[in-house]
Amino acid sequence: MKEAKDLFKFSPLYTDLYQLAMGQAYFLDGTAEKPAVFDYFFRTIPFGGGYVIYAGLDPLLQALGSLKFSPADLDYLQQLNFRHDYLDYLETFHFAADVFSMKEGEVVFPLEPVIRVEGKLLEAQLIETLLLNLINYQSLIATKASRMRLAAGSRVLSDFGLRRAPAQGGILASRAAIIGGFDSTSNVEAARMFNLEPAGTMAHSLIESHGDEFQAFIKFVEANPGRATLLVDTYDTLRSGLPNAIKAARELEKRGLKLQGIRLDSGDLAYLSKKARQMLDAAGLKEVKIVASNLLDELVIRSLIEQEAPIDIFGVGTRLVTGAPDAALDGVYKLSMFDGQARMKLSDNVTKTTLPGRKQVARFKDEQGWLVADAVHLADEDLPAEMFHPFEPEKFLNLTNYQDEGLLAKVIDQGQRLQVESSVQKIAAYTRQRLAHLPPEHKRFEYPHIYKVGLSQRLMARRNDLIHRYRQSFEGG
Amino acid sequence: MKEAKDLFKFSPLYTDLYQLAMGQAYFLDGTAEKPAVFDYFFRTIPFGGGYVIYAGLDPLLQALGSLKFSPADLDYLQQLNFRHDYLDYLETFHFAADVFSMKEGEVVFPLEPVIRVEGKLLEAQLIETLLLNLINYQSLIATKASRMRLAAGSRVLSDFGLRRAPAQGGILASRAAIIGGFDSTSNVEAARMFNLEPAGTMAHSLIESHGDEFQAFIKFVEANPGRATLLVDTYDTLRSGLPNAIKAARELEKRGLKLQGIRLDSGDLAYLSKKARQMLDAAGLKEVKIVASNLLDELVIRSLIEQEAPIDIFGVGTRLVTGAPDAALDGVYKLSMFDGQARMKLSDNVTKTTLPGRKQVARFKDEQGWLVADAVHLADEDLPAEMFHPFEPEKFLNLTNYQDEGLLAKVIDQGQRLQVESSVQKIAAYTRQRLAHLPPEHKRFEYPHIYKVGLSQRLMARRNDLIHRYRQSFEGG
Repeated sequence: MKEAKDLFKFSPLYTDLYQLAMGQAYFLDGTAEKPAVFDYFFRTIPFGGGYVIYAGLDPLLQALGSLKFSPADLDYLQQLNFRHDYLDYLETFHFAADVFSMKEGEVVFPLEPVIRVEGKLLEAQLIETLLLNLINYQSLIATKASRMRLAAGSRVLSDFGLRRAPAQGGILASRAAIIGGFDSTSNVEAARMFNLEPAGTMAHSLIESHGDEFQAFIKFVEANPGRATLLVDTYDTLRSGLPNAIKAARELEKRGLKLQGIRLDSGDLAYLSKKARQMLDAAGLKEVKIVASNLLDELVIRSLIEQEAPIDIFGVGTRLVTGAPDAALDGVYKLSMFDGQARMKLSDNVTKTTLPGRKQVARFKDEQGWLVADAVHLADEDLPAEMFHPFEPEKFLNLTNYQDEGLLAKVIDQGQRLQVESSVQKIAAYTRQRLAHLPPEHKRFEYPHIYKVGLSQRLMARRNDLIHRYRQSFEGG
Repeated sequence: MKEAKDLFKFSPLYTDLYQLAMGQAYFLDGTAEKPAVFDYFFRTIPFGGGYVIYAGLDPLLQALGSLKFSPADLDYLQQLNFRHDYLDYLETFHFAADVFSMKEGEVVFPLEPVIRVEGKLLEAQLIETLLLNLINYQSLIATKASRMRLAAGSRVLSDFGLRRAPAQGGILASRAAIIGGFDSTSNVEAARMFNLEPAGTMAHSLIESHGDEFQAFIKFVEANPGRATLLVDTYDTLRSGLPNAIKAARELEKRGLKLQGIRLDSGDLAYLSKKARQMLDAAGLKEVKIVASNLLDELVIRSLIEQEAPIDIFGVGTRLVTGAPDAALDGVYKLSMFDGQARMKLSDNVTKTTLPGRKQVARFKDEQGWLVADAVHLADEDLPAEMFHPFEPEKFLNLTNYQDEGLLAKVIDQGQRLQVESSVQKIAAYTRQRLAHLPPEHKRFEYPHIYKVGLSQRLMARRNDLIHRYRQSFEGG
């Protein structure tokens, strides 16, 4: 996994077995090449939050561009008793569908299609697992990161999560953290791949191996003059670490070197950061930054700031890269058209039915640019003048006074990638800009106001009609 | 990531920046090649459980065997302003330390060293992040899987998690699931890499694209006679899916094909599985299995079995591969010896101090083979006759009546991998066997009895002595 281009090269076997089994059925019954439309959307916002940050598009586009069955892949499928004629067909497979997507970094909401894939049934089916695997996880982490950014205000956020990250998933976790608003990462591989700012301090082992904390500090800064942040809690933060760091700062100054920061990694961070600030300031080290880490999340960061903890840089690990406690975004990929006809999944629970047809999402903004509502409508209808609550049709919203913007745009044209932003910094800037226009009531952590996502009248009618027709078929109506 | 050997090839840049920065300090102050000992251990058992299943050793050994700095790696480090002489040194780097480990699949407990690395300070330091990244995640998932196995008894467990897995982490999640006791996986790539049993059913899109549920069932089974499990909740489980599946089974029988199972993926699984069993049995389809999925975890599985739900196969996704709700194991890697001297990290909280010295773990069993206690002792002392509670030294346990077993054995000798089990099936069998000898009170989900891990008298004395000496040094004693 040395280079980014290889990181996003997946075998088509990176999928669920049933995709390949369904493909074989499509191949045999002659539907494999018939036109199909699938939507990616999610139903639930993690963390009890009011929005999701969509991340993972660029890695997905890279993966789709190189999806081919190798001879070894086909050999393995033969061992699994797939048919020879089907495997011959897969040998020539490449992904040649159209893909429409929102911009990576977009602020997105439940039920609206974030990605729409239009292609042959088999190719669109085969990519389901890969798409879900890449988009669900990265969007989860970008969303978590953005919450920490909301809590941290203008203070620095650094991703320290690789050691608790889900194995190789840690690379894309670091990428998603930056999209969500982090400033830097300790993950050197991710920093190289995505041109991120690498960051780091030191570990206890350096001090313990040296034995003498003061001398260890001096040696570390002399060896790493550009990375002079000292971990002060190896023996005792206030009685040993900080006095030694201050003494080292003075000694280093004589040698023309500057102490840049100290790091707290245990104990009560509010108490210790205040004490540390006092001690540093009293020693004339006002410019030395305080880095804090240890089981941080958005709620702890918010609490520390409320307590006026003078922490300049938050190093966040576990709860960033795992997206704990939810740890998953429930994104799904569902058929909405086949062979020119609208399709959907029914459910006894209307909130779990899917939306049929080729759809577009129109986002409405008020005069100040605040986001007001998203309307899901059929791609071939005019912009709706009003939208309806997806499950309570007596609720509707007039849209005529707002400016609109279509969110889904083509990103792959018959298998060819179009111009799509791949700079993580630019994607992060887009997220920042979009979140700035999301009203604060949707961003609060406790019981956020639900952002309105509605359906056009025609889409609602089509869905209800299809539900009615399906139900009739087995109710003997 | 096409082949297993590449999957576990990591650049040494797959690490935290500070490892490389500390390495530079070691290089400059002449300690880089001095002997050091590090321990991997964890402090907290996830899920409120009573044990952890140790997983990830074989991937780690593969990764360590191929760890080298490429010219591109060194170029990047030069851009980060690492020194030329240090980079020249890293150019020749390869991992040549000794590694001692418990067996992969072992049942392990807090505070005891699970892995011990003995080598030069720099090489042992540089692998920290990689080791933690691979072992923490896989052990988390194997532990979660083993809880589901405890709940499921002899019923089949299948991993359906790839779509909600943390990006590429999903490959090792599937491996860890099998170690913890799963029977099969939907993840075809993982099945190929680790020789696991691939499994799967079908998705709604097959039925929706076809339109007619009965005909879609027939076509799917004809195309996949060995994988004839039908998803019955696309339109309505009891009124459409099951009647059509039963009708399809009869039609298929005429064509010499057998329906193997039906899958429930929504609704109340206890109610629906009972209804489905009745309908299948009444139609003479007693041998048709019932597969259930949808947000399962060990507690839901246990509840379904308590309700006598006639489910034969549980398909588990999200809560397996994310290890939710904890989503992380807090494993750490700490220096315990340097240049012949015992080292440790102090803390105001004695439970967060580390254990100094080269250590071994002795496991004690009673005459029936039940695990009784683990004693952490110095590697060069005789087997202890009693052990002490790590933080409450007035509590101790006499060990003379038990059989003992040393758990840490050499797995890498000066960089050369020794014979270590790599078959996932054999590792899983080891886990099964070890868990069978862990008394049930440590395996219950609610407030499990705490398994005893103690210290030998000599180890405790060494730790206390070192704490005393360190404290004196900054208390001016």
